[in-house]
Amino acid sequence: MAGSSEEAPDYGRGVVIMDDWPGYDLNLFTYPQHYYGDLEYVLIPHGIIVDRIERLAKDIMKDIGYSDIMVLCVLKGGYKFCADLVEHLKNISRNSDRFVSMKVDFIRLKSYRNDQSMGEMQIIGGDDLSTLAGKNVLIVEVSWHFLFHTWRLKESNGEF
Amino acid sequence: MAGSSEEAPDYGRGVVIMDDWPGYDLNLFTYPQHYYGDLEYVLIPHGIIVDRIERLAKDIMKDIGYSDIMVLCVLKGGYKFCADLVEHLKNISRNSDRFVSMKVDFIRLKSYRNDQSMGEMQIIGGDDLSTLAGKNVLIVEVSWHFLFHTWRLKESNGEF
Amino acid sequence: MAGSSEEAPDYGRGVVIMDDWPGYDLNLFTYPQHYYGDLEYVLIPHGIIVDRIERLAKDIMKDIGYSDIMVLCVLKGGYKFCADLVEHLKNISRNSDRFVSMKVDFIRLKSYRNDQSMGEMQIIGGDDLSTLAGKNVLIVEVSWHFLFHTWRLKESNGEF
Amino acid sequence: MAGSSEEAPDYGRGVVIMDDWPGYDLNLFTYPQHYYGDLEYVLIPHGIIVDRIERLAKDIMKDIGYSDIMVLCVLKGGYKFCADLVEHLKNISRNSDRFVSMKVDFIRLKSYRNDQSMGEMQIIGGDDLSTLAGKNVLIVEVSWHFLFHTWRLKESNGEF
Repeated sequence: MAGSSEEAPDYGRGVVIMDDWPGYDLNLFTYPQHYYGDLEYVLIPHGIIVDRIERLAKDIMKDIGYSDIMVLCVLKGGYKFCADLVEHLKNISRNSDRFVSMKVDFIRLKSYRNDQSMGEMQIIGGDDLSTLAGKNVLIVEVSWHFLFHTWRLKESNGEF
Repeated sequence: MAGSSEEAPDYGRGVVIMDDWPGYDLNLFTYPQHYYGDLEYVLIPHGIIVDRIERLAKDIMKDIGYSDIMVLCVLKGGYKFCADLVEHLKNISRNSDRFVSMKVDFIRLKSYRNDQSMGEMQIIGGDDLSTLAGKNVLIVEVSWHFLFHTWRLKESNGEF
Repeated sequence: MAGSSEEAPDYGRGVVIMDDWPGYDLNLFTYPQHYYGDLEYVLIPHGIIVDRIERLAKDIMKDIGYSDIMVLCVLKGGYKFCADLVEHLKNISRNSDRFVSMKVDFIRLKSYRNDQSMGEMQIIGGDDLSTLAGKNVLIVEVSWHFLFHTWRLKESNGEF
Repeated sequence: MAGSSEEAPDYGRGVVIMDDWPGYDLNLFTYPQHYYGDLEYVLIPHGIIVDRIERLAKDIMKDIGYSDIMVLCVLKGGYKFCADLVEHLKNISRNSDRFVSMKVDFIRLKSYRNDQSMGEMQIIGGDDLSTLAGKNVLIVEVSWHFLFHTWRLKESNGEF
């Protein structure tokens, strides 16, 4: 997330936001009415994520050699991202001459968190996970950490 | 699902397929490679479902008076349908001047089925469902019954 | 457009509509407000055309062997169809490893029509058409004949 | 296009690119194969234009008070932008309760340019432009000036 001149940022790792980048003006895009008043600017417009997912799908297809995929979507955050990614994977598959079978399952992570520790993680839902052994499993999760860095709320005290 | 001349079918209930409708030729559309050889024709092309979802979203918005919605998606079958429906609901909300808040949660139904009875239904996943009391809850489920009627497999023995 | 039992319709030619097919109920889909009152039913929903164009793009790409394409769009009717087709062609190209260059040009046909004859056809617009010699030229035209057969107006006196 | 600290840029005018913004890494997105080797980075991803057009459509609808629109698309550059904009305008119209009629026509501009002057501009194609008098006419043009500023070619000698 840095943009200093001493060391070139490694853009290959993802979408890099310069420290002095003021973001896109809110009036450039449409956004849900219930965000009015809470947002100051847009750091990553929705369309960039759409474009990024298209490339991700292409890279994933190439990495797994067009073999079968088991997509494991981590709810709740990941479902829209996952639906879009699967859509692009299917799109590539449908327009190629290669055979790719795709299955989607859903899990949810719950942690027994208290003040001291994160405790253990429990996986809820999903078919019997032992059936995934030996398969190409694509785990799709969108972390809140990521979201906190891409949306900055107006009332933020600068901690994010 | 009937098309007799004696009584007019009630199209308002949904997409009606005539008994003598031979379906769309497979060569008109793209479809996943792993279906090749198993399908004879297409009864409901994907695009009709896309168009139908757009109208559903409009009707839902009108029915609930543009008030807040809690969408409860029934996995696994309903996730793509749900993602598309939520997308259209958000689209309407984003392009209107009215304030609509939308939340999505996911549940899964498991039944203790045996030969004699369906037994009890268990709800897995989802936040505490008691929090839904008094809210507009939109339950999105795609039943296999529906799918069996819209896709007819080549090797079908006529039971469907 | 026939559906008689004596001879099997050739579905490979396109989307075939049975003579006794009552069409889709208007309430199943959204459609422009200014059509209200003028339409009775929908024969070919928009989504079917979307799906059909995707397959057309795939077939075109296969036919021309992923070589360069010059798309000649016939205005005004063909522009939306053409834009969608080019979008799908680009989509296939972008997600494949093959090099496909695509250019789009636009022409308009005007006929010196009078009561007796259609007279000559004049091509308006477009770059110098002689530059098209020896190239893969994809001419995209949507004829009114086609549209008259897919939309039937309420007040129609049967001439169409 | 400025990013100096002395005067705040007016983001309301459009998408502003900071002078020191290195652009998005090419590996983040898919792009046509025939651009490989010629591009160094992406300044404005396709998705941002998609998002921007959606907002433009909303603003245009509000500005004209949901009255009828005559869209005049300037070929060749503007056709894709125009098709997307019209799509969004129709989308808003279809999902609202207000009546909006929309017509699209196409023109092409040719200038008799020589070394000294731009000379006169000639309008080719389009229906009789006198019929546009007194109507809401939306002229959609994408200028090359804009494109030169958003795409920077690898072999650029700095003239752009």
